[in-house]
This record gives sequence, C-alpha cells and structure tokens, in this order.
Amino acid sequence: MALKNLLLLAGDGIGPEAMAEVKKLIAAMNDTLDSGFVTDEGLVGGCAYDAHGAAISDADMAKAMAADAVLFGAVGGPKWDAVPYEVRPEAGLLRLRKDMELFANLRPAICYPALAASSSLKQEVVEGLDILIVRELTGGVYFGEPKQIIDLGNGQKRGIDTQVYDTFEIERISGVAFELARTRKNHVTSMEKRNVMKSGVLWNEVVSQTHKARYADVKLDHMLADAGGMQLVRWPKQFDVIVTDNLFGDMLSDIAAMLTGSIGMLPSASLGAPDAKTKKRKALYEPVHGSAPDIAGKGIANPIAMIASFAMCMRYSFGMVAEADRLESAIAAVLDQGLRTSDILSPGMTEVGTTEMGDAIIARF
Amino acid sequence: MALKNLLLLAGDGIGPEAMAEVKKLIAAMNDTLDSGFVTDEGLVGGCAYDAHGAAISDADMAKAMAADAVLFGAVGGPKWDAVPYEVRPEAGLLRLRKDMELFANLRPAICYPALAASSSLKQEVVEGLDILIVRELTGGVYFGEPKQIIDLGNGQKRGIDTQVYDTFEIERISGVAFELARTRKNHVTSMEKRNVMKSGVLWNEVVSQTHKARYADVKLDHMLADAGGMQLVRWPKQFDVIVTDNLFGDMLSDIAAMLTGSIGMLPSASLGAPDAKTKKRKALYEPVHGSAPDIAGKGIANPIAMIASFAMCMRYSFGMVAEADRLESAIAAVLDQGLRTSDILSPGMTEVGTTEMGDAIIARF
Ligand SMILES: CC(C)[C@H](C(=O)O)[C@@H](O)C(=O)O
Ligand SMILES: CC(C)[C@H](C(=O)O)[C@@H](O)C(=O)O
Repeated sequence: MALKNLLLLAGDGIGPEAMAEVKKLIAAMNDTLDSGFVTDEGLVGGCAYDAHGAAISDADMAKAMAADAVLFGAVGGPKWDAVPYEVRPEAGLLRLRKDMELFANLRPAICYPALAASSSLKQEVVEGLDILIVRELTGGVYFGEPKQIIDLGNGQKRGIDTQVYDTFEIERISGVAFELARTRKNHVTSMEKRNVMKSGVLWNEVVSQTHKARYADVKLDHMLADAGGMQLVRWPKQFDVIVTDNLFGDMLSDIAAMLTGSIGMLPSASLGAPDAKTKKRKALYEPVHGSAPDIAGKGIANPIAMIASFAMCMRYSFGMVAEADRLESAIAAVLDQGLRTSDILSPGMTEVGTTEMGDAIIARF
Repeated sequence: MALKNLLLLAGDGIGPEAMAEVKKLIAAMNDTLDSGFVTDEGLVGGCAYDAHGAAISDADMAKAMAADAVLFGAVGGPKWDAVPYEVRPEAGLLRLRKDMELFANLRPAICYPALAASSSLKQEVVEGLDILIVRELTGGVYFGEPKQIIDLGNGQKRGIDTQVYDTFEIERISGVAFELARTRKNHVTSMEKRNVMKSGVLWNEVVSQTHKARYADVKLDHMLADAGGMQLVRWPKQFDVIVTDNLFGDMLSDIAAMLTGSIGMLPSASLGAPDAKTKKRKALYEPVHGSAPDIAGKGIANPIAMIASFAMCMRYSFGMVAEADRLESAIAAVLDQGLRTSDILSPGMTEVGTTEMGDAIIARF
C-alpha cells in the first residue's frame, strides 16, 4: 500500500492544540488500522515569521508541494499585528493557496442536530441545514494586480486592488460545483454582483455556458451576492451548493458557518486540479475558524473543526470514504452524548477540554 | 418660508405604489401644516429605458441636481434583464449617486418591537436592535477604472474591476460615521479586509488617523469584514455605527436589514458633502428593498420603507426633526395596532394592502 504523506502546519494560536488531537488520531489509525500515514511538520504564520522572517519558508513550501495533503491549523494573533504586510501571518496561507493552485475551496455549512439550539437563528431555520459553499480561491481581488498603495503627495494616498477573473477560472470552479451538486441535491446557486461588476457579468455568463454545455441536468440559479447574503439569513435551507468568487466566498461562507451555531466545528478543503498523469489533486485542509489567540494555550479550544478537516482529507485525498464517514459519525455521537467544549456549552451538557474532546472522538471512531 | 423642492423618482416594480403613499402624505402635510413641499417627477430604471433608451435621462438628472432632495423608489425587473450593461436599470441609480456625489449612505437597521418575532433570528438576539451602517457610496469597486471585459482570444475573456480608495474619501466617510456616533451610543466599528486588500490597509490607517485627530472621544473598533458579517449574525447588538466601503457596505447592510425581520420597512439616506456657501447637502432617500416585480401592481406592497425614507428626508434635508419623529412613531403605532402588509403578516394580525397601510400611517401622523 502506498504511504500517505501529510504535512502538518499547525500555525498559531489554538492551531497547535487542535492539531495535537489529529496527531493522536493519526497515530491510532496507523497503529490499529495500519493506515500508512506519514507525517512531517512545518511552520506557517506568525511562528514562521518569528523563526524565519517569512510567513512560510521556501523549505516548508517545498514540503507542501511534495506532500499528498497539507493539514493546516490557523494563523495570526495580536503579536504580529504590526509586522509588514508582505510577511503578515495570512501571507503564508495565501502563498500556499496560490503556489499549490488550490482554486477550489469547499466549505460545508452543516448544522449538527445536537447544536441546532445554540445558533442565533431560530431552530427551525437551521435544523438539518446542509449546504456546501464552493469558493474560488486563487483569483479575484485577492491576487489581481495592481495591488498597491500609491503616495499621491499632499498627504493623499491611493489604495488599489484589482478584481480579475478569466473564463477558464470561472469554468473550472463551476465545474467543481456542478460535479459536487450531482452527489448532493443537484442544485447550484451562483452568486456575483453582475449589476455593478464586469467580473460579475463574465462570471454569470461563464457559469451559464458551463451549465448548458456539460451540466444541464443540474438545477442552476443565479443570485446577486447581496441578495444571496440576505437569503442565507432568511431561509438557508433553500440552498444546496453555492458557487461564488474569492471575496464573496470569504464573506458568505463565514456567514453560512455562523448560521449553524457551529463555527468551531466546520472544516474546509482547498483542492487543486487533478494532475494529468497521476490524477491526484494537491490539497490543503483547514478549519473555518481562526487562531483565537484569546483562548490559546488554555486547553479549552474546540478541536472538532480540525478533526473534521482530517475527515475531509481522508475523503477527498485518499478515497477513504468509509473512514471519513465513521469519523464524522463519531463527532456527531460525542455531541449527542452531551460532551461540549466551552464555545458550544449549553445548560445540562458536560464541559470538556480540548484533549478530552479529542480522546472521546477517537474512542468512538 | 422657503419652498422644499422634491424630485420623486418612483422607478419600477412596486416603486410607484410605495411612492403613491408618500405623495398622499406630502399633500396632507401641505394642506394641513402648510409644509411647503413642491414635487416634481421623473423616470429612472427600466421605465426610463423604455421611454428614453437610458436608465435616467439628462433632463431628469438635471432636475435631480437642482432639487433639495430626491425620493427614489426602486428599479429593475425581469423585463430588462437582457438590456445592455450601460443602460440597465441600476445604471440610473449609480449615475444619481455618482453625479450628485452622494458619498455617504446611511442605512439604519432597526428592529420594530412589533416585528421582533418575525425575524429568522431568535427574538432575544434582535429585539431592540438599532444599528446604523454608514456605507461609502461613490468609490471602491463600483466606480474604479479599469472596469471592463477583454476578449483574450481562444474563447477566453477577462473580467476586470478595480477597487480604489483615496485618503480623502475614507476621511470624509469616517467623519460622517463619527459625527453620527456622537448622536447615538458613541461607538464606531470600521470593517475592511486589510489582511488581503491594500485598499483595506489604507482604509484602516485613515480611519484610525481621523479618529485620533478629531474624534478621540468616540470608541473605535476595527473588524475584518468577514468576521464582521459573522458577528452581525451572532450578536448584532454589539454594534452601534458600522462604517465600511461600498461593496462590503452593500453586503453587510443587506444582512443587517434582514436580521431585523423588517426588510420591507427599512429606509436609507444618501448624502453629499455640505455646499460651501449654503451648507446644504445633496440628498437621495430610498427604501433598502428592491422593486419586487413579482408582487408589483397587486396593491399589496409594503409602503413603510418608502414612508420611513421620507421621514429621513425630513430629518436630514429639512431639519424637520419633530415631524420625522412623529412619522416614525406613527409607523410604530400602526404596527402595534396589528396592521400588517402580507410580507410581514403573522397569526392574529390584520392584513392590509398598500393604500390602507399608507392611510393608517397618515391618520396616526
Ligand atoms: C486569513 C484570511 C486571509 C482568509 C481569507 O480571507 O481568505 C480567511 O478569512 C479565510 O476565509 O480563509
Ligand atoms: C441596485 C444596486 C446597484 C444597489 C447596489 O449594489 O448598491 C443595491 O443593491 C443597493 O444596495 O442599493
């Protein structure tokens, strides 16, 4: 059996604590199931800046490029608020996405039944919610040039960012969305602002063409991104798969995550195109939550999003569908059993720390 | 007493029906209070395109420039989905904003007590909510150049939009936010994506400088726009005034409006800079909701957002604070009394149409 090479980039804040639980799980799987995971580790974010003066070193980038999959924790914290823009913690994540060409960001927003009551939305609005946001991740305003601040003199500066999308970029991300929709409820909603953005006009046109040419069996709707945000809040269950650009995807996926009441629980996958020869996709898996510096090091962080990210890793990078299903069921079971980290604690439930939560999930797996 | 010149641009869809209720109110105020409103009318949006081939004619633009204030209904509908980009209905609204230099868009998100239960959010999350979104309206990706679609050959096109902000634009919009905060809870939260956008870096810097130089008495927080969207959904009452750019403001204000359960109820004001001599600001007032073509012409549209926009008009353009307060109280009273248009109907309430709702508010005024 081929070995499975994982690079672990735990990052800053609660990243290392959450990653520690995944490490335990990997060790257990290697021991008892002979799963063949081989792990290496590297630095990303503020800790990489402290060590190398860059948000990720070239050596760690090379490891990421060579790995079968990267598991990513979280980056950033007040300690690095004043570092130069080019080496800020986020730059490490952005470089990984860009250099690995991880254009497809999959962000499921699932409402765990045990947590439906803890959403700020009414229970009937979010109960059973299961939507998938497919966000374009290597284009748009995140990477377009020019991107700069110009000094105009007289105390005036000009900040410029450029939103750019080419046909092929829209085609490939919508292809991913349509393919995934076929494995779900067969419904894609594409969101842009075609009424004010030329990139939105092109987005709309290319998604429609891709649909007509190759995916006419999937139901396709178009929605303006502002209306889409409203509809997410009003009645999120109307959606199945949402496909959108890098910046709208950033906003909309965070909102969708928050709806579920489970923001500490949600994983994501960032995938590249299949290699022409090996058919394998480069991939990075990370929790949707951030580095939560305020609770870092206290042993109270919720490791579920990180563990669920590893489930996505098994599913998408290694075809370990049964194991991924089992891990996701173990998470749900532990929640049903009443175990809660402090971020999702509610009356009558049992509060546990990071390691107890990890142990409980591994025991159920 | 100086006459008050209003230009009414009812637009498309439910715009004219909602505007009709404001016309009745204006006539009543002129009759019984001798308020001195003089109204003229013009076309904007799809109806202007049908009449003149443009989303607003030069003649109507000239009227808008000369008026003391513009009342705007709504634009757009499926009838005009295929018209060329340059003359699409929204182009009329965007030209008004740009040519009148209406850089400050004020969008209150208020939860009417009578409607707290009809939000998709839990009642305790939205009850008593009163936040004000101050959105920059004449800059950013809405107007930056280049903005175009380029044909690259080989079936490839490139869609480009440009996000641009200059120091003075950020300074003046944050000044408006700080001034308004002083009349409220004295708290401003500025939202951008400084971690990925250079315009966000500049935005953050200039807001901080403006604060330090002129508004140090106001509490200022910075939040990343994606985190801000999440926090709006999680616990909106943490905010007082939110200041943000054109595109983030579009998304965030729609989400904030939807939280209140009162999207058909919310007004907005778009203001220019005070004239050097007369101190008067150019101004346009419009409901946050759209043209709702599906219910247009049925007499069931909710006129409250349009009427509340007229209240903002009296408050900001004519200093008629007492009248504005009274009109807002009349709206609340009619809701307390149980009258509802179909969009906000709930069990036990009395369903009324557009004109009955308008009449009831006028009677209470
Ligand atoms: C950390 C930041 C650069 C990143 C983004 O904006 O994409 C984050 O918000 C995310 O959504 O993964
Ligand atoms: C109609 C459209 C151009 C407009 C915008 O995007 O600004 C609308 O969504 C708004 O928020 O006023």
